[in-house]
Amino acid sequence: MACENNTSDFDRQLLIDACSPFPNSQKTYVTGSREDIRVGMREVHLHDTPERFGGGRNEPVRIYDTSGSYTETGVPHDLNQGLPGLRSKWIEERADTELLDGRSSEFARSRQFDLRLEDIRFKALRTPRRAKTGQNVSQLYYARQGIVTPEMEYIALRENMGCSEGSHITPEFVRKEVAEGRAIIPANINHPESEPMIIGRNFLVKINANIGNSAVTSSIEEEVEKMLWSVRWGGDTVMDLSTGKNIHETREWMIRNSPVPIGTVPIYQALEKVKGKVKDLSWEVMKDTIIEQAEQGVDYMTIHAGVLREHVAKTKNRVTGIVSRGGGILGQWAEMHDAENFLYDNFRELCEVCQAYDISLSLGDGLRPGSIADANDEAQFGELKTLGELTKIAWEYDVQVMIEGPGHVPMHLIKENMEMQLEHCHEAPFYTLGPLTTDVAPGYDHITSGIGAAMMGWYGCAMLCYVTPKEHLGLPNRDDVKAGLIAYKIAAHAADLAKGHPNAQVRDNALSKARFEFRWLDQFNLALDPDTAKAYHDETLPQDGAKDSEFCSMCGPDFCPMRMTQDVRELEETA
Amino acid sequence: MACENNTSDFDRQLLIDACSPFPNSQKTYVTGSREDIRVGMREVHLHDTPERFGGGRNEPVRIYDTSGSYTETGVPHDLNQGLPGLRSKWIEERADTELLDGRSSEFARSRQFDLRLEDIRFKALRTPRRAKTGQNVSQLYYARQGIVTPEMEYIALRENMGCSEGSHITPEFVRKEVAEGRAIIPANINHPESEPMIIGRNFLVKINANIGNSAVTSSIEEEVEKMLWSVRWGGDTVMDLSTGKNIHETREWMIRNSPVPIGTVPIYQALEKVKGKVKDLSWEVMKDTIIEQAEQGVDYMTIHAGVLREHVAKTKNRVTGIVSRGGGILGQWAEMHDAENFLYDNFRELCEVCQAYDISLSLGDGLRPGSIADANDEAQFGELKTLGELTKIAWEYDVQVMIEGPGHVPMHLIKENMEMQLEHCHEAPFYTLGPLTTDVAPGYDHITSGIGAAMMGWYGCAMLCYVTPKEHLGLPNRDDVKAGLIAYKIAAHAADLAKGHPNAQVRDNALSKARFEFRWLDQFNLALDPDTAKAYHDETLPQDGAKDSEFCSMCGPDFCPMRMTQDVRELEETA
Repeated sequence: MACENNTSDFDRQLLIDACSPFPNSQKTYVTGSREDIRVGMREVHLHDTPERFGGGRNEPVRIYDTSGSYTETGVPHDLNQGLPGLRSKWIEERADTELLDGRSSEFARSRQFDLRLEDIRFKALRTPRRAKTGQNVSQLYYARQGIVTPEMEYIALRENMGCSEGSHITPEFVRKEVAEGRAIIPANINHPESEPMIIGRNFLVKINANIGNSAVTSSIEEEVEKMLWSVRWGGDTVMDLSTGKNIHETREWMIRNSPVPIGTVPIYQALEKVKGKVKDLSWEVMKDTIIEQAEQGVDYMTIHAGVLREHVAKTKNRVTGIVSRGGGILGQWAEMHDAENFLYDNFRELCEVCQAYDISLSLGDGLRPGSIADANDEAQFGELKTLGELTKIAWEYDVQVMIEGPGHVPMHLIKENMEMQLEHCHEAPFYTLGPLTTDVAPGYDHITSGIGAAMMGWYGCAMLCYVTPKEHLGLPNRDDVKAGLIAYKIAAHAADLAKGHPNAQVRDNALSKARFEFRWLDQFNLALDPDTAKAYHDETLPQDGAKDSEFCSMCGPDFCPMRMTQDVRELEETA
Repeated sequence: MACENNTSDFDRQLLIDACSPFPNSQKTYVTGSREDIRVGMREVHLHDTPERFGGGRNEPVRIYDTSGSYTETGVPHDLNQGLPGLRSKWIEERADTELLDGRSSEFARSRQFDLRLEDIRFKALRTPRRAKTGQNVSQLYYARQGIVTPEMEYIALRENMGCSEGSHITPEFVRKEVAEGRAIIPANINHPESEPMIIGRNFLVKINANIGNSAVTSSIEEEVEKMLWSVRWGGDTVMDLSTGKNIHETREWMIRNSPVPIGTVPIYQALEKVKGKVKDLSWEVMKDTIIEQAEQGVDYMTIHAGVLREHVAKTKNRVTGIVSRGGGILGQWAEMHDAENFLYDNFRELCEVCQAYDISLSLGDGLRPGSIADANDEAQFGELKTLGELTKIAWEYDVQVMIEGPGHVPMHLIKENMEMQLEHCHEAPFYTLGPLTTDVAPGYDHITSGIGAAMMGWYGCAMLCYVTPKEHLGLPNRDDVKAGLIAYKIAAHAADLAKGHPNAQVRDNALSKARFEFRWLDQFNLALDPDTAKAYHDETLPQDGAKDSEFCSMCGPDFCPMRMTQDVRELEETA
């Protein structure tokens, strides 16, 4: 068992499940130009081809791995201590940041010294870090200076999945894509635990898992468990969308234990701070919240600065109005104050804060459509243009930017949506929620949206925010999170194949070959979800011997076409 | 309870589940130009809009319904008697068929008089019917003569879902599409129980459910139950792919109780008849099998007449060889006999048989690719061209034709596949299995293929053969069948929206409006699967009162963006 947990509050079974090594797999490391650039990958070991099929060894398959060291055999984890700082040395070496005496956020300090929170507080805090005055510490800044950071080299190795030969994805290519704003590396200097990854349309399509409690349900332990569960099943980033109690503490636990970048929507917490009264929101509260989260290590933040009143006005005749929480809050605030969105008005100051921690901006689509009827309308595209203007401003500050997108879009309008984004937002990476391609299947929106996500990914979307089966109905549980992630890994991988990403098809080919040669265990082990594949096979043929049989219960022994193919081939050879 | 079953062998709970009316729905009938053209539809009744959202009545939504009278309140069913012959009078009126003294197939007669089969035999047999000598009884024949049959009128009403106003789908349009070979109406004269439906790219995209036992598992009762279950969840046709014992009897039970067209792959049974010895197959055994099934009422048959040796030779370097059972059998037979496929050689005689019963041909793609690596290869396209030639021959006999397609195709090759089919097969309807867009997710192939199916449907595929989560792993059970059907209803509906089918968006819009107005029950009732939608909502908010609440557990009461939208709208109005 790779994961040892000393906190009795955690769900032992979930931690065991989340941190078990994958079957017949082992963690392997590819080392870069310096010893401490060590990229972890999962290596699936395969059986030999049976003699009947010509025999021969099958090379292990390397898989892009988001689960960090949690799935590595023999590595103990203590959730109370958090992960080691993989990037700490790189950040220190650059000598452009300084350690702070304490938290800069008033709110963070008040939580830190509140004795009533003793029981739920993460204890092994890191000392926060900020750019030295006058310094710029973003990966975009370095890239523009022509500097290839260790993060960029790490990413190049990671994207090639251990087979760089002939690949165009070199460290220099990574640098160039970042420098041109076509890709981002979400990597807050206060989250050194995270393993560098990139979001851009010339790389593997990434997926994000939204987790977080709401006022109705869920606890800190559950959220940390969901995070571990998310990275196990392929979440490239995790967004903490908590809106209930103890958001600050929940986030600290999550970031300290997360091997992937963490995103948030700070307006949610800002609203909690003013006791849910939208009217009482202000730039000051928001700024303190951004700094609070920045010093905890949040890697990217959704900022709904494009929700302008002129765009909100265009939602009037929509079937489903505004469906983004942030959009709803800011639309309401502007109306109450008869003023423009304060995030828009204070955008430059916001960029200055982000710059000091290398926070990537995820410019939120507060007016994304919430139904097929409202897809690709004036409100959405109006906001998109504003997001494009804001992108240029953020780039003035070397702040990395991606753009959030819909939502609900029928298939024939998906391409237009992607093209409009590239055009209006100057090729900044697109990050969409689905989109759902129909509204008629609540309970199955991982599928309605998986279709749209795969297409959007193929057309150039860089990251897909998952949708779980519970979307529109309730807060997802453990099974829903997994179902959402698998559906989105499918969508992202299908997009990688369609885009012709180097090496993407290696896994498909290895699995298909195993299938043809009736190497059932290899087929299961190469699957996105080995447990389910094996369990389904076991349902009708649980015997161990069935794992070598040249048939399954679907066709039975006499009707297996793949066995017949082999019969034909043998006939031909002996003819 | 709509379904009363007197056969104690059947699973009472499944029958109750399969035959319960849908919540807040009622069966309604739209009548055509004559009294006996009565098209059943499901009508979902909605609640009024709450005063806060402006009040007002919401029109009931009519839904295309494949479940026949099984979901109608107060209609008793006796599975031992089968369904009434909805089309019997129309067939008789045409006076171009005759009742036979007995079954023409030798095999059928031997089963009929075998005392050992007494216990499993369907008793209320219909007298078989065949075209009078020299007569042609296919819907294609009538269409070409300019005759609008009651079946065609029924279909026009059905496709418009009760709202024909301004729709281009008139009875004459149906006739024209059939006459030009762009659409088929699978309607064996020996299956008068089935409700007329059409398969063509200018109509709603249809889905098929494969069921059937294999030598390893499953029984007659289970297969009939799966059929009822399939039509409940939207199966437009059902294919009986049984390969185990008692295929003949299983099929009789299924057809007599099926409100949808039934398809088969007769070569499976032919192989059973020669005790699984491929070498012993012959045109004679196959012909007797086709006639046997024709007189039971099979509406369409998959015939792998395009599996020629020159095409099989091109599969040599494939990763997964041949993956169609029929393709495997015929490839093996040809190799064993050093002869050409006997279905190709006897194709004209085969057409004569089909003509006499109005059996539609589903020209099988025996060489469809079984992996991403093999997609769109020479073997597949070679066979496709042959299928195009066979289409023209079938049309000489006024036999209706559709073409089967893959399988496994990455997203960027799907469009090419569809275009090649239209070109080579003269616009005969395409009927694809998925396709799967990646091979890496056994256990989730309803999703990997749902993506491909939606795209294929949008590009012009007329019917999508579902794939269940058990694909590649085992025989699907009840839950798998439902999961496959829902995924494919999503794909088909998403395609209908993208193609702009008249009225397709009515349901999406009604559901979205219900969602925005927090009419939770209406949202559930309009869903493809009301049970699951409600159950998911109940998981976190089981109280009855929560069904009127202006929030759910996902965002909680303070963060519901749709509630906020309404707040903003009210603010604006009072401003």
